[in-house]
Amino acid sequence: MKLWQKSTDVNKKIEAFTIGNDQELDLLLAPYDILGSLAHIQMLQEIGLLEKSELKELSEELKSLYLLALKGELTIDEGMEDIHSQVEFLLTQKLGEVGKKIHSGRSRNDQVLVDLKMYFRSEIEEIAGMIESFTSTLLRQSEMYKDVLIPGYTHMQVAMPSSIGLWLGAYAESLSDDLIALRAAYEMINKNPLGSAAGYGSSFPLDRERTTRLLGFDEPNYNVVYAQMTRGKSEVALANALASIATTLAKFSMDVCMYAGQNFGFISFPDELTTGSSIMPHKKNPDVFELVRGRCNQLMSLPNELHLLLSNLPSGYHRDLQQLKEHLFPGIQTLKQCLDIADFAIGKLKVNPNIINDPRYDYLFTVELVNELVLQGMPFRDAYREVGKRVEEGTYEPNREVKHAHLGSLGNLANEQIGEKIERELAKFNFEEVRQCFDALIR
Amino acid sequence: MKLWQKSTDVNKKIEAFTIGNDQELDLLLAPYDILGSLAHIQMLQEIGLLEKSELKELSEELKSLYLLALKGELTIDEGMEDIHSQVEFLLTQKLGEVGKKIHSGRSRNDQVLVDLKMYFRSEIEEIAGMIESFTSTLLRQSEMYKDVLIPGYTHMQVAMPSSIGLWLGAYAESLSDDLIALRAAYEMINKNPLGSAAGYGSSFPLDRERTTRLLGFDEPNYNVVYAQMTRGKSEVALANALASIATTLAKFSMDVCMYAGQNFGFISFPDELTTGSSIMPHKKNPDVFELVRGRCNQLMSLPNELHLLLSNLPSGYHRDLQQLKEHLFPGIQTLKQCLDIADFAIGKLKVNPNIINDPRYDYLFTVELVNELVLQGMPFRDAYREVGKRVEEGTYEPNREVKHAHLGSLGNLANEQIGEKIERELAKFNFEEVRQCFDALIR
Amino acid sequence: MKLWQKSTDVNKKIEAFTIGNDQELDLLLAPYDILGSLAHIQMLQEIGLLEKSELKELSEELKSLYLLALKGELTIDEGMEDIHSQVEFLLTQKLGEVGKKIHSGRSRNDQVLVDLKMYFRSEIEEIAGMIESFTSTLLRQSEMYKDVLIPGYTHMQVAMPSSIGLWLGAYAESLSDDLIALRAAYEMINKNPLGSAAGYGSSFPLDRERTTRLLGFDEPNYNVVYAQMTRGKSEVALANALASIATTLAKFSMDVCMYAGQNFGFISFPDELTTGSSIMPHKKNPDVFELVRGRCNQLMSLPNELHLLLSNLPSGYHRDLQQLKEHLFPGIQTLKQCLDIADFAIGKLKVNPNIINDPRYDYLFTVELVNELVLQGMPFRDAYREVGKRVEEGTYEPNREVKHAHLGSLGNLANEQIGEKIERELAKFNFEEVRQCFDALIR
Amino acid sequence: MKLWQKSTDVNKKIEAFTIGNDQELDLLLAPYDILGSLAHIQMLQEIGLLEKSELKELSEELKSLYLLALKGELTIDEGMEDIHSQVEFLLTQKLGEVGKKIHSGRSRNDQVLVDLKMYFRSEIEEIAGMIESFTSTLLRQSEMYKDVLIPGYTHMQVAMPSSIGLWLGAYAESLSDDLIALRAAYEMINKNPLGSAAGYGSSFPLDRERTTRLLGFDEPNYNVVYAQMTRGKSEVALANALASIATTLAKFSMDVCMYAGQNFGFISFPDELTTGSSIMPHKKNPDVFELVRGRCNQLMSLPNELHLLLSNLPSGYHRDLQQLKEHLFPGIQTLKQCLDIADFAIGKLKVNPNIINDPRYDYLFTVELVNELVLQGMPFRDAYREVGKRVEEGTYEPNREVKHAHLGSLGNLANEQIGEKIERELAKFNFEEVRQCFDALIR
Repeated sequence: MKLWQKSTDVNKKIEAFTIGNDQELDLLLAPYDILGSLAHIQMLQEIGLLEKSELKELSEELKSLYLLALKGELTIDEGMEDIHSQVEFLLTQKLGEVGKKIHSGRSRNDQVLVDLKMYFRSEIEEIAGMIESFTSTLLRQSEMYKDVLIPGYTHMQVAMPSSIGLWLGAYAESLSDDLIALRAAYEMINKNPLGSAAGYGSSFPLDRERTTRLLGFDEPNYNVVYAQMTRGKSEVALANALASIATTLAKFSMDVCMYAGQNFGFISFPDELTTGSSIMPHKKNPDVFELVRGRCNQLMSLPNELHLLLSNLPSGYHRDLQQLKEHLFPGIQTLKQCLDIADFAIGKLKVNPNIINDPRYDYLFTVELVNELVLQGMPFRDAYREVGKRVEEGTYEPNREVKHAHLGSLGNLANEQIGEKIERELAKFNFEEVRQCFDALIR
Repeated sequence: MKLWQKSTDVNKKIEAFTIGNDQELDLLLAPYDILGSLAHIQMLQEIGLLEKSELKELSEELKSLYLLALKGELTIDEGMEDIHSQVEFLLTQKLGEVGKKIHSGRSRNDQVLVDLKMYFRSEIEEIAGMIESFTSTLLRQSEMYKDVLIPGYTHMQVAMPSSIGLWLGAYAESLSDDLIALRAAYEMINKNPLGSAAGYGSSFPLDRERTTRLLGFDEPNYNVVYAQMTRGKSEVALANALASIATTLAKFSMDVCMYAGQNFGFISFPDELTTGSSIMPHKKNPDVFELVRGRCNQLMSLPNELHLLLSNLPSGYHRDLQQLKEHLFPGIQTLKQCLDIADFAIGKLKVNPNIINDPRYDYLFTVELVNELVLQGMPFRDAYREVGKRVEEGTYEPNREVKHAHLGSLGNLANEQIGEKIERELAKFNFEEVRQCFDALIR
Repeated sequence: MKLWQKSTDVNKKIEAFTIGNDQELDLLLAPYDILGSLAHIQMLQEIGLLEKSELKELSEELKSLYLLALKGELTIDEGMEDIHSQVEFLLTQKLGEVGKKIHSGRSRNDQVLVDLKMYFRSEIEEIAGMIESFTSTLLRQSEMYKDVLIPGYTHMQVAMPSSIGLWLGAYAESLSDDLIALRAAYEMINKNPLGSAAGYGSSFPLDRERTTRLLGFDEPNYNVVYAQMTRGKSEVALANALASIATTLAKFSMDVCMYAGQNFGFISFPDELTTGSSIMPHKKNPDVFELVRGRCNQLMSLPNELHLLLSNLPSGYHRDLQQLKEHLFPGIQTLKQCLDIADFAIGKLKVNPNIINDPRYDYLFTVELVNELVLQGMPFRDAYREVGKRVEEGTYEPNREVKHAHLGSLGNLANEQIGEKIERELAKFNFEEVRQCFDALIR
Repeated sequence: MKLWQKSTDVNKKIEAFTIGNDQELDLLLAPYDILGSLAHIQMLQEIGLLEKSELKELSEELKSLYLLALKGELTIDEGMEDIHSQVEFLLTQKLGEVGKKIHSGRSRNDQVLVDLKMYFRSEIEEIAGMIESFTSTLLRQSEMYKDVLIPGYTHMQVAMPSSIGLWLGAYAESLSDDLIALRAAYEMINKNPLGSAAGYGSSFPLDRERTTRLLGFDEPNYNVVYAQMTRGKSEVALANALASIATTLAKFSMDVCMYAGQNFGFISFPDELTTGSSIMPHKKNPDVFELVRGRCNQLMSLPNELHLLLSNLPSGYHRDLQQLKEHLFPGIQTLKQCLDIADFAIGKLKVNPNIINDPRYDYLFTVELVNELVLQGMPFRDAYREVGKRVEEGTYEPNREVKHAHLGSLGNLANEQIGEKIERELAKFNFEEVRQCFDALIR
């Protein structure tokens, strides 16, 4: 069944091509589709387009469908085009003609828009929670290993002293900034498109502010042409946020894979977290982090894929927009899996305690010597030349005692400030408020 | 079962994360994995690493597995890591210890490399066949509608006379050039990696030229480190070819969608090929071509996704490479579906015969007038100014008779030459030869 | 001169290759480099690493260099590696040894980081100002043409009534959401990296909170390893914001180019804003918007280019990061030019007042009829079928009177709310505060 | 001066915006523009549109302009729109009215198309030459260091024995495959668009086969609508080839940077090829290869940038296409610089001769032991388990003697075959033939 069924049948080959994976991907939208309908009909009744008794009938039935959806028991029948058709079909089957009324003053366009926005909000909430957990693991391990020195590299050359603590804390702070990108996506998404219909509004006297409040949105997407334009724009904003987090995870994984190799030997993982080789019996490969790196690198291409899809499309709905879900929906799941497994594996990280004593790392301490000479009164550039001379002549001797004390340095990791920053960022989302709106709708 | 099973169990969570979609995607490789093994053991016997009787036993069993695979009845068991493990497991179950010998002188790395290359060759062959079919449809329709004039646009402004014939023929020729990109991918892929093992060769006296001939490859990937590097490089080459074809299809679809709209009204499709709207009962949307456009635009991002995955990985195998299949394999199927549906739909194209008489298209014929004045002896720039003056003053009168006769123009579409070019390009692939090699292997 | 000059000369060929375009691009950083040094030395004096008299000498000289830089008269000498070297060279030339002291407790790495962040803040301020101006032009023209109806399209098919007012207002609202992306970039950038030295901190007792306040940053990038990681991360965040704005401009330009063509004929521009053709004397091409579209489409690839550059680089500085400026710096200028020219051209937009009466647009009004029947009591799906039947039978008659009244629709554009939203977004930046900090530094 | 000058002046602001960088980038096209005109007028005379005497006059003047262009002395005057206008202006200044006749039967569209194609052919020739040189350096160094063993890595873990020879040879072979991508671009480009005018042909009886032969093209782009479509398609094909080469260079540079670091210490460069640090006096950074890596990674984004520019543009010329040059032209130069500097630096490579004796590399030789046990008759899987057991128990002892002898392995690098393959690929281009055509034109 299609909502727009005409008298001529659509060719089967065409139908298979056009439906694509919609049935599968749409299931994720089911609970939000029902919540959107609950808000829409409440508003319809308030502006006089629905009887109170009709509202009651429809609401009750929708609430039971919502419970089904939450349990994963609401499926899309073979031949049913999408989740919207399925819900309307079930309502009409049960309640007769009145079931069709949930579509008054709506188009599938604003219906799918509102579903997507609610779904994205919920995924953002989950991701934010996983970042909270992973950063707390990183900061805990950073504190644990704050005294284990490692070389810090520039140009992949041994440069200056660093530590496992400094290294792990850096990625926690990176994720705290990724939360800014996540919040930007959330703010852009968290606006109500309902009432924009097919992108040109409706002749019904819809109360768009009312559905905005009922569904916990910050404000409406005012202009109805713009509301339709948020299809694609919301997805790009979310994809950018995913890519931002993925960039942090991928860089971290690159470090992990390098540091776990025999040429560095800084870290390792328990045997049950590594895999082997079919011809080399000694191998213990950190596949987990190679796959986190690979999958996160792929996630970086998501915004570009969406741009390619959208670029040069004039305003107004196009069927191409259906494709937005194809890699974005699975991409969201992939990122969550990566956050989860990284959190799990870093919780079991093993650190080699005697890294820094390797003579290859002697030159790490030249800057310390330069600075010491400066503190003794030599101008910086002269101290630099003096130490450079000793290195070239082979008379340089390292002093492995490191005394960095300023904010964010070896001796003062600022992990507390980073932890607070993360909590501050998380507090800027209105997740709790949205949950209260939903509770009110299904009460 | 994993080929590299160690005594410690791998954590279940890690296992689920690392296997990913491999089991599903690997099924496509099954027949090629078996063919590769057939060639490998024949060579092993010839260099003395396998008894003749062992070869016979193994070959017979592999051939019956090959038939199963062709029928789609070879599946990967729950808990089996990949297709290679599955095949070895089945052999060993049936033949005992000798089953394990197919792995001598190989690593999973060169095994998956050779599987992928054979699989890609086969998909390239299918795509080439679909291009042959689609271009023949385009050229047939081009001939059919060669006299139906339409405006040609520059800057999206009405510019000069064109025709449905010219328009359709252009895309056939575009696909003929896409075959060059497809052949480049084929040439890059069609080299034998077997014998490179994990990317560093083997101490066995493998005869790599022998497996090259048995499997129909042009030559070996000589250097074993390079052979491993073709993982990723082959995929990028193929993705570039897919993107090249997709670019042609997407541009064509954009034209189709515009020309089918009421503001152009050049073409339409039978009702059973279009879809409708849930709130606008008059709509007959060309969804097929919107989806071809959207999906092909997404395919353009494939090479970039692979570059992001591969960029800055040092030489040598990394588990990240497993991710190469994720969007490339489905992308191949998507492109084939798009070629198929476009071929089908263009076969049913309906053309409005009276496009050009609309007064909006009067200015199309100004260049004809300029050229007429030039042929009468006026220098081009002066003729241009004269006609420009008439247009500005409103005294210009169009003459709709068009006399373009040179090669590739309105009156001389060169469709025959384009058709020959396509056949010439197709003849440069060695598909037939490969098929003969396979026949010899499974005889 | 290079700050790190060793006794061996660097090969000339290598030098030319490595310096690249740095000299040219670095000039944009000059004023910020000097401001950063002013803050740094003030802090150095406060922690006892500089005498008061030295601070005075250095400050005075830096302030006069700052004035030179603002006037564009500070240049980078041939053979000088970058702006940092140039400034130190000039100081030392004038003041002798003390000139070298501005480098104590810094590396070129944190110096360039702080320069870039201040430079980006300033460009973000300019862009925000241009968005304010352009949206006010869009809203003014939207009000001016709010009663000019045009067809609204879905699937590039005539769908429902829209208006020039609705169309222009949509893009103003789109830019209001782009300000969210711009602010996210600003928030991510607006943190102080000074004191992170080469990415591993310093043994000097630097007061990083002090320079944070002096330079108007929100807070420090705490962890010094993370501070270095913001190189690249800041650029990606900014590129995402540029791409977000560019996406809106490109889509708008696509509409403009289509609507200016003879097949739509909705809008035009004065002759002096269009260009012609070398062989078609009647052409008046909207090149400006084709170039805005093209340039903005290119800007969308900026984040991806940066991801490719950064992907899989382990933590720590790499010389590759120098390349971040290459297309980002010119990209910023391009976006500003596009905003400026679009603002200018839309201010001169000419609108065809009689668009909607064309019979091709009759079907626009079917939904109105469906809704009317619904308001008369017919269930929506039945009304939809009834109107569909009339369309198929040819008995449908359009009623061109449109009565949309809800928020954001044809009769209620919500331009006031959109304008307020823009002001609200702009108020969230702390541009004024930064300017006060700079005034204090150079007073 | 603009070829299409109308009576109304174009606004200055608009003019500055629309011209962009065309004047600078167009200079590269100057010699090809003149060669194209020489072929065009010869054909015009042959079909009777030009007098013999006019042909003589025009040819002589064009030939002297060609010499100027080769010497870099042909400039584009202030206010002149592009190279085509400049050449026509100079001809008319010298010869009067007849100068204008070179434009008969052409549009700027097919003129710029033919210029671009000839320019790209010439750059491809230069790049092919540089690949020939660089691969010969790589193969020479590979032979020189064929006995220096290094660890081969998988998963960034020490895996199996490799050698400097194997490593360097791999990249020579990779470049030999990149030549396939380069040839695909060449084949796609090397077709004649002249005669397609503005993309819809001409009413003049142009002999397109004649200009095809005169300019050394393989065949015409037959269909004139398709000929115009090659704008963009040619650029993407070339960008793909650049990206293919860049991918090889970037991966190689990543290896170089890693291997030059203290944690590997495999290779180094003479002091005059490295740079230092402003705070770490011991640093000798391989900046050259970091920049090759960074620039080549950026080049990988070129095809995507072009796709974004072109995606969803309907057929026909759009001004957006002017932007194709913006990053592609400089990108070509960048790639050539990278090939040149890598060739230069690898020629001076220094190799540490005692890499493999480090005990960290003991496990490299486990596969040798597995294979030895297999050759002694143990089934592979059992041998694998046996050696694995010895590794876990600490009883494994490495035997550093490596006996790989098969094609492409440690003891048999196949450098000769790789060198032949490169020559075979180079011979497939028709560079010599093109040069002969040009000689004939300017004789």
